[in-house]
Amino acid sequence: METTPMCTEWQFSGSEAAKEAAAAALGAYTSKLMSLCDPNGKPILPPSNKAVETSNSAEKAVVKVILSGTGNAYAPSIGLPLAKSAVAEYLNRDLPKKLTADDVFMTVGCKRAIDLAVDILAKPKANVLLPRPGFPWDVVRSIYKKLEVRYYDFIPEQNFEIDFESVKKVTDKNTFAIFIINPHNPNGNTYSEAHLKQLAELAKELSIMVVSDEVFRWTVFGNNPFVPMGKFSSIVPVITLGSLSKGWNVPGWRTGWLALHDLDGVFRNTKILQAANQFLQINAKPPTVIQAAMPDILERTPKHFFHERGSFLKHKVDIGYSKVKHIPGLTCYMKPEACTFLWTKLDISCFADIEDDQDFCSKLAMEENLVVLPGVAFRQKNWLRHSIDMETPTVEDAFERLKSFCERHSVERGASLKNVNGVNK
Amino acid sequence: METTPMCTEWQFSGSEAAKEAAAAALGAYTSKLMSLCDPNGKPILPPSNKAVETSNSAEKAVVKVILSGTGNAYAPSIGLPLAKSAVAEYLNRDLPKKLTADDVFMTVGCKRAIDLAVDILAKPKANVLLPRPGFPWDVVRSIYKKLEVRYYDFIPEQNFEIDFESVKKVTDKNTFAIFIINPHNPNGNTYSEAHLKQLAELAKELSIMVVSDEVFRWTVFGNNPFVPMGKFSSIVPVITLGSLSKGWNVPGWRTGWLALHDLDGVFRNTKILQAANQFLQINAKPPTVIQAAMPDILERTPKHFFHERGSFLKHKVDIGYSKVKHIPGLTCYMKPEACTFLWTKLDISCFADIEDDQDFCSKLAMEENLVVLPGVAFRQKNWLRHSIDMETPTVEDAFERLKSFCERHSVERGASLKNVNGVNK
Repeated sequence: METTPMCTEWQFSGSEAAKEAAAAALGAYTSKLMSLCDPNGKPILPPSNKAVETSNSAEKAVVKVILSGTGNAYAPSIGLPLAKSAVAEYLNRDLPKKLTADDVFMTVGCKRAIDLAVDILAKPKANVLLPRPGFPWDVVRSIYKKLEVRYYDFIPEQNFEIDFESVKKVTDKNTFAIFIINPHNPNGNTYSEAHLKQLAELAKELSIMVVSDEVFRWTVFGNNPFVPMGKFSSIVPVITLGSLSKGWNVPGWRTGWLALHDLDGVFRNTKILQAANQFLQINAKPPTVIQAAMPDILERTPKHFFHERGSFLKHKVDIGYSKVKHIPGLTCYMKPEACTFLWTKLDISCFADIEDDQDFCSKLAMEENLVVLPGVAFRQKNWLRHSIDMETPTVEDAFERLKSFCERHSVERGASLKNVNGVNK
Repeated sequence: METTPMCTEWQFSGSEAAKEAAAAALGAYTSKLMSLCDPNGKPILPPSNKAVETSNSAEKAVVKVILSGTGNAYAPSIGLPLAKSAVAEYLNRDLPKKLTADDVFMTVGCKRAIDLAVDILAKPKANVLLPRPGFPWDVVRSIYKKLEVRYYDFIPEQNFEIDFESVKKVTDKNTFAIFIINPHNPNGNTYSEAHLKQLAELAKELSIMVVSDEVFRWTVFGNNPFVPMGKFSSIVPVITLGSLSKGWNVPGWRTGWLALHDLDGVFRNTKILQAANQFLQINAKPPTVIQAAMPDILERTPKHFFHERGSFLKHKVDIGYSKVKHIPGLTCYMKPEACTFLWTKLDISCFADIEDDQDFCSKLAMEENLVVLPGVAFRQKNWLRHSIDMETPTVEDAFERLKSFCERHSVERGASLKNVNGVNK
């Protein structure tokens, strides 16, 4: 019989490089809170199996591509020409300065478009301005790897407009871009034309570009219409990011884009166009089957699809907003006019036994089977993001549970606290 | 009137970080050679608009998912559970040690699976062994960023088996993995069961794992059947990589996977399983619409689909291989038994005015409108990769053009060279 060593000292181990970032991803927060819920208790909210109405036109378009076989081959790394043209034409509807297909790059969802923007712009010692609250921390982490990140603030009392003073305060000679989210997740507002123009003029004064994440532009239901940042590219160079995910309810389709709204050829002269081409050459591409369906998806989805979705969300926001008014310790500064969330400030002093937003969310999940995300996930401690994208009885149930949780833990009712779950603590 | 500065000194520029890698991508070589072809000359080969037969079962499966709406939501970052199960079950058909869904991770094509393997394994000072020829240089570049890369060789005269002596020579205490490609692109061979077992035993002796890219496993048409490396995971820990691209002719679907074939829980103990989860949490995901179709795609594609594809390729390989025998300066050591290419050695001394493989390919494109990739793209100078995946008359035409080009430039016919294109040089 052959003698073999009992134990090989294998020369490998797992990397820990992604550990921290993975733990900070929104998905990780959600999973952690889900795991605190009681699977044998009342239904866990928001329901994970909700069947949202998807655009029928988008579905038909992809089916057509699959059956015709036109989306089976590799697409060029920068995107399928007809998809790039379709996005350019679509965006041009609202733009005085028209884009060409060459200005548009197809990406694997909007998150990769953010990565791409950072990749093509990164240089040593440079810094970028990000919104607080804003991008979830795993996105910010990947930006951190390449750039210094600085934060600007909002004025909640003023419809969550950008606090321009805070922008000026953190900008220096190494700042090259301000990232905005419009409509803003989680604040839930859209920026007015006047506000965006002011931003463009400020950016020009500071010699920085504006990068605008516009992925929620199709879920707008307030009085302010959505205004694309590209409209101001005669003042300042602009990069806009978009995707099918939110508007068409197909995040699983992983198809997004980045558009360069140039000003007097500055993107070409600063080699940004060239860098975008090079980075896409070596990075992941969105599925050709969906790229090839882009012209039909963008041209043929009827307006009423977005209107109906907007009405649905507005109704749910109304319910959530009016319920929150009667919940102690939570303040919603503005009724959202876009996106699919309520964003509330948590007054910790109102609660007898809650340490902070994370503690609040953990206890809420454990006691009420309700998943609400803590503000820290968006870099703003002691705020909460509540999903409202549920059917009416469900959203009502969610806010009722939230209310009874807050009442149970409030300072005023401190005495009854000892009786939670019928156990004397 | 307001006075504005005529010219803003914008504080940004494009990054050059991707420049070199992008230029070395296979797509960049192809584009460059394409641009040398004369669009008004004879048809450019290989034709770019070839309509390859795609699996009807795969198409039906995705259409079903789209119409049922089950693929519209975000999938978990590590992959949709039912897709992971389907891949595990599919691979298990050939494995004595069975995989579970937890051992499989879904990725955006096979290239991202390679990235993932490198990401989860990277540690300072570590090195990996890569095949030469093998992965295109843009893949290698991205590996370089994280690890030292060392190369092992093949024995062309011995059916392109791995040169185990060259493996031993470059392995040291910091080596932790050997990457293989099986079936091998561009060599065109599949490894025998005996050869793979020897490799497993050598890897065990060296205490390194085996990472096997098996993306071409469905395009096998020689006498050697494909044997999955996972079969030897009772000897050595193995990671296998796969995707739908080549087998189902749907590279545009961007759906691949990575499977961990553990040995006595070593992947769990060395935290590799954990690292894979963490990296996928923060990286791009394959489209849910295709993930959700994986069970149908893997279970329902009839065997004859792959047989027909194999017969088609075998026929074209036969044509190309017999033609090359009569072309001066080119040697094909082995008739391919897999993949979609011929891989030939270029004897530069046979040619009067050809400097190297790149020069050969450039002149070939210019004079014959024929695109053949130079060996340097795969890290092996003065070899050539010829596509054979064309209809019979087209593949015959391609090799006829190749032959007349080689004859025209050969040393023996040096005199006639001066008369190419009717111009005295």
